[in-house]
Amino acid sequence: MTTETLIRAEHPLPEAEFGERYAQVQQFYSHQMQLFDAHDADRWAATFTEDAVFDVPTLDAPVRGRAGLAANVRRNRAQQERSGDQLRHWIGMLDIRPGRDDELHTRCYALVYVTPRGGTSKVLRVCVMEDVLVRVRGKWRTRHRVVTRDDLA
Amino acid sequence: MTTETLIRAEHPLPEAEFGERYAQVQQFYSHQMQLFDAHDADRWAATFTEDAVFDVPTLDAPVRGRAGLAANVRRNRAQQERSGDQLRHWIGMLDIRPGRDDELHTRCYALVYVTPRGGTSKVLRVCVMEDVLVRVRGKWRTRHRVVTRDDLA
Amino acid sequence: MTTETLIRAEHPLPEAEFGERYAQVQQFYSHQMQLFDAHDADRWAATFTEDAVFDVPTLDAPVRGRAGLAANVRRNRAQQERSGDQLRHWIGMLDIRPGRDDELHTRCYALVYVTPRGGTSKVLRVCVMEDVLVRVRGKWRTRHRVVTRDDLA
Repeated sequence: MTTETLIRAEHPLPEAEFGERYAQVQQFYSHQMQLFDAHDADRWAATFTEDAVFDVPTLDAPVRGRAGLAANVRRNRAQQERSGDQLRHWIGMLDIRPGRDDELHTRCYALVYVTPRGGTSKVLRVCVMEDVLVRVRGKWRTRHRVVTRDDLA
Repeated sequence: MTTETLIRAEHPLPEAEFGERYAQVQQFYSHQMQLFDAHDADRWAATFTEDAVFDVPTLDAPVRGRAGLAANVRRNRAQQERSGDQLRHWIGMLDIRPGRDDELHTRCYALVYVTPRGGTSKVLRVCVMEDVLVRVRGKWRTRHRVVTRDDLA
Repeated sequence: MTTETLIRAEHPLPEAEFGERYAQVQQFYSHQMQLFDAHDADRWAATFTEDAVFDVPTLDAPVRGRAGLAANVRRNRAQQERSGDQLRHWIGMLDIRPGRDDELHTRCYALVYVTPRGGTSKVLRVCVMEDVLVRVRGKWRTRHRVVTRDDLA
Protein backbone atom coordinates (compact mmCIF):
# COMPACT_ATOMS: atom_id res chain seq x y z
CA MET A 1 0.00 0.00 0.00
CA THR A 2 2.84 2.33 0.73
CA THR A 3 4.63 1.91 -2.57
CA GLU A 4 2.03 3.63 -4.72
CA THR A 5 3.54 6.26 -6.92
CA LEU A 6 1.34 9.32 -7.02
CA ILE A 7 1.72 11.87 -9.75
CA ARG A 8 2.92 15.32 -8.83
CA ALA A 9 0.21 17.90 -8.32
CA GLU A 10 2.24 20.75 -9.75
CA HIS A 11 1.26 21.87 -13.20
CA PRO A 12 3.00 24.42 -15.37
CA LEU A 13 -0.16 25.62 -17.15
CA PRO A 14 -1.48 29.14 -16.71
CA GLU A 15 -4.59 29.17 -14.50
CA ALA A 16 -7.21 29.60 -17.20
CA GLU A 17 -5.72 26.77 -19.23
CA PHE A 18 -5.67 24.36 -16.32
CA GLY A 19 -9.43 24.68 -15.80
CA GLU A 20 -10.13 24.20 -19.48
CA ARG A 21 -7.81 21.20 -19.66
CA TYR A 22 -9.31 19.58 -16.58
CA ALA A 23 -12.84 19.84 -18.00
CA GLN A 24 -11.71 18.43 -21.34
CA VAL A 25 -10.20 15.39 -19.66
CA GLN A 26 -13.33 14.79 -17.59
CA GLN A 27 -15.48 15.03 -20.73
CA PHE A 28 -13.08 12.71 -22.56
CA TYR A 29 -13.27 10.01 -19.90
CA SER A 30 -17.04 10.32 -19.54
CA HIS A 31 -17.53 9.73 -23.23
CA GLN A 32 -14.88 7.01 -23.44
CA MET A 33 -16.41 5.03 -20.55
CA GLN A 34 -19.96 5.41 -21.90
CA LEU A 35 -18.80 4.03 -25.26
CA PHE A 36 -17.10 1.12 -23.45
CA ASP A 37 -20.19 0.22 -21.42
CA ALA A 38 -22.37 0.43 -24.55
CA HIS A 39 -19.96 -1.95 -26.34
CA ASP A 40 -19.50 0.58 -29.14
CA ALA A 41 -16.27 -1.16 -30.15
CA ASP A 42 -14.97 0.98 -33.02
CA ARG A 43 -15.88 4.35 -31.58
CA TRP A 44 -14.34 3.34 -28.26
CA ALA A 45 -11.15 2.12 -29.94
CA ALA A 46 -10.95 5.46 -31.76
CA THR A 47 -10.52 7.23 -28.40
CA PHE A 48 -7.06 5.59 -28.24
CA THR A 49 -4.10 6.37 -30.47
CA GLU A 50 -3.32 3.96 -33.31
CA ASP A 51 -0.37 2.54 -31.34
CA ALA A 52 -1.98 2.58 -27.89
CA VAL A 53 -0.97 0.14 -25.15
CA PHE A 54 -3.80 -1.09 -22.89
CA ASP A 55 -2.59 -2.98 -19.85
CA VAL A 56 -5.40 -4.21 -17.58
CA PRO A 57 -5.52 -7.11 -15.13
CA THR A 58 -8.53 -8.77 -16.79
CA LEU A 59 -6.40 -9.49 -19.89
CA ASP A 60 -3.55 -12.00 -20.04
CA ALA A 61 -1.27 -9.57 -21.84
CA PRO A 62 -1.34 -5.89 -22.80
CA VAL A 63 -3.34 -5.12 -25.95
CA ARG A 64 -1.63 -2.96 -28.60
CA GLY A 65 -3.48 -0.98 -31.28
CA ARG A 66 -7.08 -0.22 -32.13
CA ALA A 67 -7.97 -3.52 -33.82
CA GLY A 68 -7.08 -5.44 -30.67
CA LEU A 69 -8.92 -2.94 -28.49
CA ALA A 70 -12.10 -3.20 -30.55
CA ALA A 71 -11.89 -7.00 -30.55
CA ASN A 72 -11.73 -6.91 -26.77
CA VAL A 73 -14.94 -4.89 -26.58
CA ARG A 74 -16.70 -7.32 -28.93
CA ARG A 75 -15.71 -10.17 -26.63
CA ASN A 76 -17.11 -8.22 -23.67
CA ARG A 77 -20.34 -7.63 -25.57
CA ALA A 78 -20.79 -11.31 -26.41
CA GLN A 79 -20.03 -12.32 -22.83
CA GLN A 80 -22.41 -9.80 -21.30
CA GLU A 81 -25.20 -10.67 -23.73
CA ARG A 82 -24.91 -14.23 -22.48
CA SER A 83 -24.70 -13.34 -18.80
CA GLY A 84 -27.21 -10.46 -18.88
CA ASP A 85 -24.88 -8.28 -16.82
CA GLN A 86 -24.74 -4.52 -17.41
CA LEU A 87 -21.39 -3.03 -16.39
CA ARG A 88 -20.77 0.66 -15.65
CA HIS A 89 -17.27 2.07 -15.38
CA TRP A 90 -16.80 5.21 -13.26
CA ILE A 91 -13.77 7.43 -13.09
CA GLY A 92 -13.13 9.59 -10.06
CA MET A 93 -10.49 11.42 -8.08
CA LEU A 94 -8.92 12.53 -11.34
CA ASP A 95 -5.41 13.88 -10.79
CA ILE A 96 -3.90 15.40 -13.93
CA ARG A 97 -0.37 16.50 -14.67
CA PRO A 98 -0.02 18.46 -17.88
CA GLY A 99 3.25 17.68 -19.64
CA ARG A 100 5.02 19.23 -22.58
CA ASP A 101 2.85 20.39 -25.43
CA ASP A 102 -0.23 18.31 -26.00
CA GLU A 103 0.46 15.55 -23.50
CA LEU A 104 -1.03 14.77 -20.10
CA HIS A 105 -0.43 12.19 -17.39
CA THR A 106 -3.43 11.18 -15.31
CA ARG A 107 -3.96 9.02 -12.23
CA CYS A 108 -7.47 8.29 -11.10
CA TYR A 109 -9.68 5.72 -9.40
CA ALA A 110 -11.99 3.53 -11.46
CA LEU A 111 -15.02 1.73 -10.11
CA VAL A 112 -16.92 -0.99 -11.92
CA TYR A 113 -20.57 -1.54 -11.04
CA VAL A 114 -22.49 -4.55 -12.26
CA THR A 115 -26.24 -5.08 -12.48
CA PRO A 116 -27.53 -8.53 -13.40
CA ARG A 117 -30.70 -8.45 -15.51
CA GLY A 118 -33.56 -7.96 -13.04
CA GLY A 119 -31.08 -8.22 -10.15
CA THR A 120 -29.32 -6.16 -7.53
CA SER A 121 -26.55 -3.71 -8.43
CA LYS A 122 -23.21 -3.97 -6.68
CA VAL A 123 -19.62 -2.80 -6.82
CA LEU A 124 -17.63 -5.33 -8.82
CA ARG A 125 -14.11 -3.89 -8.70
CA VAL A 126 -12.12 -0.95 -7.34
CA CYS A 127 -9.15 -0.01 -9.53
CA VAL A 128 -6.46 2.60 -10.04
CA MET A 129 -5.98 3.81 -13.62
CA GLU A 130 -2.93 5.61 -15.00
CA ASP A 131 -3.01 7.07 -18.50
CA VAL A 132 -0.82 9.00 -20.85
CA LEU A 133 -3.09 11.18 -22.99
CA VAL A 134 -2.04 13.02 -26.13
CA ARG A 135 -3.93 15.54 -28.21
CA VAL A 136 -4.19 14.58 -31.86
CA ARG A 137 -5.79 17.07 -34.25
CA GLY A 138 -7.51 18.79 -31.34
CA LYS A 139 -8.85 15.64 -29.67
CA TRP A 140 -7.53 13.86 -26.60
CA ARG A 141 -6.60 10.20 -27.07
CA THR A 142 -5.23 7.57 -24.67
CA ARG A 143 -1.77 6.45 -25.72
CA HIS A 144 -0.93 4.30 -22.72
CA ARG A 145 -3.10 2.85 -19.95
CA VAL A 146 -2.22 0.75 -16.93
CA VAL A 147 -4.98 -0.42 -14.57
CA THR A 148 -4.42 -2.17 -11.26
CA ARG A 149 -7.12 -3.85 -9.17
CA ASP A 150 -7.25 -3.40 -5.41
CA ASP A 151 -8.33 -7.02 -4.89
CA LEU A 152 -5.26 -8.32 -6.72
CA ALA A 153 -2.81 -5.86 -5.14
CA MET B 1 -27.23 -3.12 -24.16
CA THR B 2 -26.17 -2.37 -27.71
CA THR B 3 -28.99 -0.01 -28.52
CA GLU B 4 -27.95 2.77 -26.16
CA THR B 5 -27.83 6.10 -27.87
CA LEU B 6 -24.82 8.06 -26.73
CA ILE B 7 -24.64 11.76 -27.25
CA ARG B 8 -22.02 13.12 -29.60
CA ALA B 9 -18.82 14.30 -27.98
CA GLU B 10 -18.29 17.14 -30.42
CA HIS B 11 -19.04 20.57 -29.10
CA PRO B 12 -19.10 23.82 -30.99
CA LEU B 13 -18.04 26.00 -28.06
CA PRO B 14 -14.70 27.83 -28.05
CA GLU B 15 -12.26 26.11 -25.69
CA ALA B 16 -12.47 28.52 -22.78
CA GLU B 17 -16.26 28.43 -22.83
CA PHE B 18 -16.41 24.65 -22.78
CA GLY B 19 -14.45 24.46 -19.53
CA GLU B 20 -16.61 27.10 -17.93
CA ARG B 21 -19.80 25.40 -19.08
CA TYR B 22 -18.68 21.98 -17.89
CA ALA B 23 -17.94 23.31 -14.40
CA GLN B 24 -21.29 25.10 -14.25
CA VAL B 25 -23.14 21.91 -15.07
CA GLN B 26 -21.22 19.92 -12.45
CA GLN B 27 -22.00 22.57 -9.86
CA PHE B 28 -25.65 22.60 -10.95
CA TYR B 29 -26.05 18.84 -10.52
CA SER B 30 -24.19 18.79 -7.22
CA HIS B 31 -26.51 21.36 -5.75
CA GLN B 32 -29.63 19.83 -7.31
CA MET B 33 -28.86 16.36 -5.95
CA GLN B 34 -27.99 17.69 -2.47
CA LEU B 35 -31.34 19.51 -2.36
CA PHE B 36 -33.09 16.30 -3.45
CA ASP B 37 -31.43 14.17 -0.77
CA ALA B 38 -32.20 16.79 1.89
CA HIS B 39 -35.87 16.74 0.80
CA ASP B 40 -35.78 20.49 0.21
CA ALA B 41 -38.86 20.22 -1.99
CA ASP B 42 -39.39 23.76 -3.21
CA ARG B 43 -35.77 24.70 -3.74
CA TRP B 44 -35.24 21.43 -5.60
CA ALA B 45 -38.28 21.99 -7.78
CA ALA B 46 -36.95 25.47 -8.59
CA THR B 47 -33.93 23.89 -10.29
CA PHE B 48 -36.35 22.73 -13.01
CA THR B 49 -38.17 24.94 -15.50
CA GLU B 50 -41.83 25.71 -14.84
CA ASP B 51 -42.91 23.26 -17.57
CA ALA B 52 -40.29 20.57 -16.87
CA VAL B 53 -40.92 16.89 -17.65
CA PHE B 54 -39.47 14.38 -15.17
CA ASP B 55 -39.61 10.80 -16.40
CA VAL B 56 -38.16 8.28 -13.94
CA PRO B 57 -38.86 4.57 -13.50
CA THR B 58 -39.85 4.88 -9.83
CA LEU B 59 -42.93 6.90 -10.87
CA ASP B 60 -45.95 5.47 -12.70
CA ALA B 61 -46.07 8.37 -15.15
CA PRO B 62 -43.88 11.37 -16.00
CA VAL B 63 -44.32 14.36 -13.67
CA ARG B 64 -44.88 17.76 -15.30
CA GLY B 65 -44.25 21.10 -13.63
CA ARG B 66 -42.79 22.28 -10.36
CA ALA B 67 -45.80 21.62 -8.12
CA GLY B 68 -45.78 17.95 -9.05
CA LEU B 69 -42.03 17.75 -8.62
CA ALA B 70 -42.16 19.25 -5.14
CA ALA B 71 -45.03 16.94 -4.15
CA ASN B 72 -42.88 13.98 -5.19
CA VAL B 73 -40.07 15.10 -2.89
CA ARG B 74 -42.50 15.50 0.01
CA ARG B 75 -43.68 11.91 -0.53
CA ASN B 76 -40.03 10.78 -0.52
CA ARG B 77 -39.45 12.66 2.72
CA ALA B 78 -42.44 11.08 4.44
CA GLN B 79 -41.46 7.63 3.24
CA GLN B 80 -37.82 7.97 4.32
CA GLU B 81 -38.77 9.40 7.69
CA ARG B 82 -40.79 6.23 8.28
CA SER B 83 -38.13 3.85 6.96
CA GLY B 84 -35.12 5.69 8.41
CA ASP B 85 -33.24 5.36 5.13
CA GLN B 86 -30.89 8.13 3.97
CA LEU B 87 -30.51 8.19 0.19
CA ARG B 88 -27.63 9.85 -1.68
CA HIS B 89 -27.79 10.46 -5.41
CA TRP B 90 -24.47 10.66 -7.28
CA ILE B 91 -23.91 11.88 -10.81
CA GLY B 92 -20.85 10.78 -12.75
CA MET B 93 -19.41 10.27 -16.19
CA LEU B 94 -21.02 13.53 -17.25
CA ASP B 95 -21.08 13.89 -21.04
CA ILE B 96 -22.32 17.28 -22.18
CA ARG B 97 -23.27 18.49 -25.63
CA PRO B 98 -23.76 22.23 -25.83
CA GLY B 99 -26.59 23.13 -28.22
CA ARG B 100 -27.80 26.38 -29.66
CA ASP B 101 -27.74 29.39 -27.37
CA ASP B 102 -28.39 28.59 -23.75
CA GLU B 103 -29.27 24.92 -24.11
CA LEU B 104 -27.34 21.77 -23.24
CA HIS B 105 -27.94 18.05 -23.63
CA THR B 106 -26.35 15.83 -21.00
CA ARG B 107 -26.00 12.07 -20.55
CA CYS B 108 -24.54 10.74 -17.33
CA TYR B 109 -24.62 7.86 -14.89
CA ALA B 110 -26.51 8.18 -11.61
CA LEU B 111 -25.91 6.03 -8.57
CA VAL B 112 -28.19 5.85 -5.57
CA TYR B 113 -26.71 4.85 -2.22
CA VAL B 114 -28.85 4.00 0.75
CA THR B 115 -27.92 3.89 4.42
CA PRO B 116 -30.47 2.52 6.89
CA ARG B 117 -30.39 4.26 10.29
CA GLY B 118 -27.54 2.62 12.18
CA GLY B 119 -27.07 0.15 9.35
CA THR B 120 -24.75 -0.69 6.49
CA SER B 121 -24.52 1.50 3.39
CA LYS B 122 -25.00 -0.07 -0.03
CA VAL B 123 -25.60 0.73 -3.66
CA LEU B 124 -29.33 0.76 -4.27
CA ARG B 125 -29.58 1.50 -7.99
CA VAL B 126 -27.42 2.19 -11.04
CA CYS B 127 -29.11 4.48 -13.57
CA VAL B 128 -28.51 6.45 -16.75
CA MET B 129 -29.81 10.02 -16.76
CA GLU B 130 -30.45 12.18 -19.83
CA ASP B 131 -31.32 15.84 -19.41
CA VAL B 132 -32.06 18.87 -21.49
CA LEU B 133 -30.81 21.91 -19.60
CA VAL B 134 -31.64 25.52 -20.42
CA ARG B 135 -30.24 28.71 -18.98
CA VAL B 136 -32.90 31.02 -17.61
CA ARG B 137 -31.80 34.46 -16.37
CA GLY B 138 -28.24 33.19 -15.98
CA LYS B 139 -29.10 29.99 -14.14
CA TRP B 140 -29.20 26.45 -15.49
CA ARG B 141 -32.50 24.59 -15.14
CA THR B 142 -33.59 21.08 -16.13
CA ARG B 143 -36.33 21.20 -18.75
CA HIS B 144 -36.54 17.50 -19.52
CA ARG B 145 -35.19 14.44 -17.70
CA VAL B 146 -35.36 10.76 -18.54
CA VAL B 147 -33.84 8.21 -16.16
CA THR B 148 -33.46 4.49 -16.89
CA ARG B 149 -32.48 1.83 -14.35
CA ASP B 150 -30.00 -0.88 -15.22
CA ASP B 151 -31.93 -3.48 -13.23
CA LEU B 152 -35.09 -2.83 -15.25
CA ALA B 153 -33.38 -2.61 -18.64
CA MET C 1 -32.77 14.34 7.44
CA THR C 2 -34.55 17.62 7.03
CA THR C 3 -32.16 19.65 9.08
CA GLU C 4 -29.22 19.49 6.70
CA THR C 5 -27.81 22.87 5.93
CA LEU C 6 -26.91 23.16 2.29
CA ILE C 7 -24.57 25.84 1.11
CA ARG C 8 -25.88 28.51 -1.19
CA ALA C 9 -25.29 27.91 -4.89
CA GLU C 10 -24.82 31.58 -5.69
CA HIS C 11 -21.28 32.66 -6.32
CA PRO C 12 -19.96 36.13 -6.88
CA LEU C 13 -17.12 35.10 -9.22
CA PRO C 14 -17.05 36.13 -12.86
CA GLU C 15 -17.91 33.19 -15.13
CA ALA C 16 -14.43 32.36 -16.33
CA GLU C 17 -13.06 32.37 -12.80
CA PHE C 18 -15.75 30.05 -11.51
CA GLY C 19 -14.81 27.33 -14.01
CA GLU C 20 -11.14 27.69 -13.17
CA ARG C 21 -11.82 27.60 -9.43
CA TYR C 22 -14.09 24.56 -9.68
CA ALA C 23 -11.42 22.59 -11.57
CA GLN C 24 -8.75 23.60 -9.06
CA VAL C 25 -10.85 22.32 -6.17
CA GLN C 26 -11.56 19.02 -7.92
CA GLN C 27 -7.85 18.58 -8.61
CA PHE C 28 -7.05 19.50 -5.01
CA TYR C 29 -9.41 16.88 -3.56
CA SER C 30 -8.30 14.21 -6.02
CA HIS C 31 -4.71 14.64 -5.00
CA GLN C 32 -5.51 14.97 -1.30
CA MET C 33 -7.56 11.77 -1.24
CA GLN C 34 -4.97 9.81 -3.23
CA LEU C 35 -2.30 10.86 -0.72
CA PHE C 36 -4.59 9.78 2.13
CA ASP C 37 -5.28 6.34 0.65
CA ALA C 38 -1.55 5.85 -0.05
CA HIS C 39 -0.80 6.72 3.61
CA ASP C 40 1.58 9.46 2.51
CA ALA C 41 1.30 11.07 5.92
CA ASP C 42 3.44 14.21 5.61
CA ARG C 43 2.44 15.16 2.10
CA TRP C 44 -1.22 14.63 3.01
CA ALA C 45 -0.88 16.75 6.15
CA ALA C 46 0.69 19.48 4.02
CA THR C 47 -2.59 19.85 2.10
CA PHE C 48 -4.03 21.33 5.32
CA THR C 49 -3.13 24.66 6.87
CA GLU C 50 -0.79 24.65 9.87
CA ASP C 51 -3.70 25.34 12.22
CA ALA C 52 -6.28 23.12 10.49
CA VAL C 53 -9.17 21.51 12.38
CA PHE C 54 -10.17 18.01 11.25
CA ASP C 55 -13.42 16.80 12.77
CA VAL C 56 -14.43 13.31 11.64
CA PRO C 57 -16.62 10.69 13.34
CA THR C 58 -13.92 7.99 13.33
CA LEU C 59 -11.88 10.08 15.79
CA ASP C 60 -12.81 10.69 19.42
CA ALA C 61 -12.03 14.39 19.19
CA PRO C 62 -11.14 16.87 16.46
CA VAL C 63 -7.49 16.85 15.42
CA ARG C 64 -5.69 20.20 15.26
CA GLY C 65 -2.56 20.90 13.23
CA ARG C 66 -0.40 19.00 10.80
CA ALA C 67 1.53 16.86 13.29
CA GLY C 68 -1.69 15.36 14.61
CA LEU C 69 -3.03 14.86 11.10
CA ALA C 70 0.09 13.02 9.98
CA ALA C 71 0.05 10.85 13.12
CA ASN C 72 -3.52 9.85 12.30
CA VAL C 73 -2.47 8.68 8.82
CA ARG C 74 0.39 6.65 10.30
CA ARG C 75 -2.09 4.91 12.60
CA ASN C 76 -4.31 4.17 9.57
CA ARG C 77 -1.32 2.75 7.73
CA ALA C 78 -0.36 0.44 10.60
CA GLN C 79 -3.94 -0.72 11.02
CA GLN C 80 -4.47 -1.41 7.32
CA GLU C 81 -1.16 -3.21 6.99
CA ARG C 82 -2.38 -5.56 9.70
CA SER C 83 -5.87 -6.01 8.27
CA GLY C 84 -4.86 -6.06 4.60
CA ASP C 85 -7.68 -3.67 3.71
CA GLN C 86 -7.21 -1.09 0.95
CA LEU C 87 -9.46 1.94 1.42
CA ARG C 88 -10.39 4.40 -1.33
CA HIS C 89 -12.00 7.74 -0.54
CA TRP C 90 -14.16 9.32 -3.25
CA ILE C 91 -15.49 12.85 -3.34
CA GLY C 92 -18.55 13.69 -5.38
CA MET C 93 -21.42 16.12 -5.78
CA LEU C 94 -19.02 18.95 -5.05
CA ASP C 95 -20.86 22.18 -4.28
CA ILE C 96 -18.56 25.17 -3.92
CA ARG C 97 -19.25 28.66 -2.64
CA PRO C 98 -16.44 31.10 -3.27
CA GLY C 99 -16.05 33.56 -0.42
CA ARG C 100 -14.02 36.67 0.05
CA ASP C 101 -10.57 36.70 -1.50
CA ASP C 102 -8.84 33.35 -1.44
CA GLU C 103 -11.39 31.40 0.57
CA LEU C 104 -13.96 28.79 -0.41
CA HIS C 105 -16.67 26.84 1.37
CA THR C 106 -17.42 23.38 0.00
CA ARG C 107 -20.03 20.73 0.73
CA CYS C 108 -19.75 17.36 -0.93
CA TYR C 109 -20.45 13.67 -0.51
CA ALA C 110 -17.65 11.27 0.40
CA LEU C 111 -17.73 7.55 -0.19
CA VAL C 112 -15.31 5.07 1.29
CA TYR C 113 -14.71 1.79 -0.52
CA VAL C 114 -12.84 -1.07 1.06
CA THR C 115 -11.19 -4.06 -0.60
CA PRO C 116 -9.81 -6.82 1.63
CA ARG C 117 -6.67 -8.45 0.27
CA GLY C 118 -7.87 -10.99 -2.31
CA GLY C 119 -11.46 -10.24 -1.36
CA THR C 120 -14.58 -8.51 -2.58
CA SER C 121 -14.83 -4.71 -2.78
CA LYS C 122 -17.71 -2.96 -1.08
CA VAL C 123 -18.97 0.42 0.04
CA LEU C 124 -17.86 0.96 3.61
CA ARG C 125 -19.32 4.37 4.45
CA VAL C 126 -21.37 7.19 2.94
CA CYS C 127 -20.49 10.61 4.36
CA VAL C 128 -21.06 14.32 3.93
CA MET C 129 -17.94 16.51 4.04
CA GLU C 130 -17.85 20.26 4.64
CA ASP C 131 -14.61 22.17 4.23
CA VAL C 132 -13.28 25.67 4.45
CA LEU C 133 -10.47 26.01 1.93
CA VAL C 134 -7.98 28.86 1.76
CA ARG C 135 -5.36 29.65 -0.83
CA VAL C 136 -1.88 30.00 0.60
CA ARG C 137 0.92 31.07 -1.74
CA GLY C 138 -1.12 29.97 -4.75
CA LYS C 139 -2.13 26.56 -3.36
CA TRP C 140 -5.46 25.49 -1.89
CA ARG C 141 -5.34 24.11 1.65
CA THR C 142 -8.05 22.77 3.97
CA ARG C 143 -8.39 24.97 7.06
CA HIS C 144 -11.46 23.32 8.57
CA ARG C 145 -13.18 20.00 7.87
CA VAL C 146 -16.29 18.42 9.33
CA VAL C 147 -17.40 14.98 8.19
CA THR C 148 -20.67 13.29 9.14
CA ARG C 149 -21.56 9.65 8.49
CA ASP C 150 -24.98 8.66 7.21
CA ASP C 151 -25.01 5.51 9.35
CA LEU C 152 -24.48 7.54 12.52
CA ALA C 153 -26.90 10.34 11.63
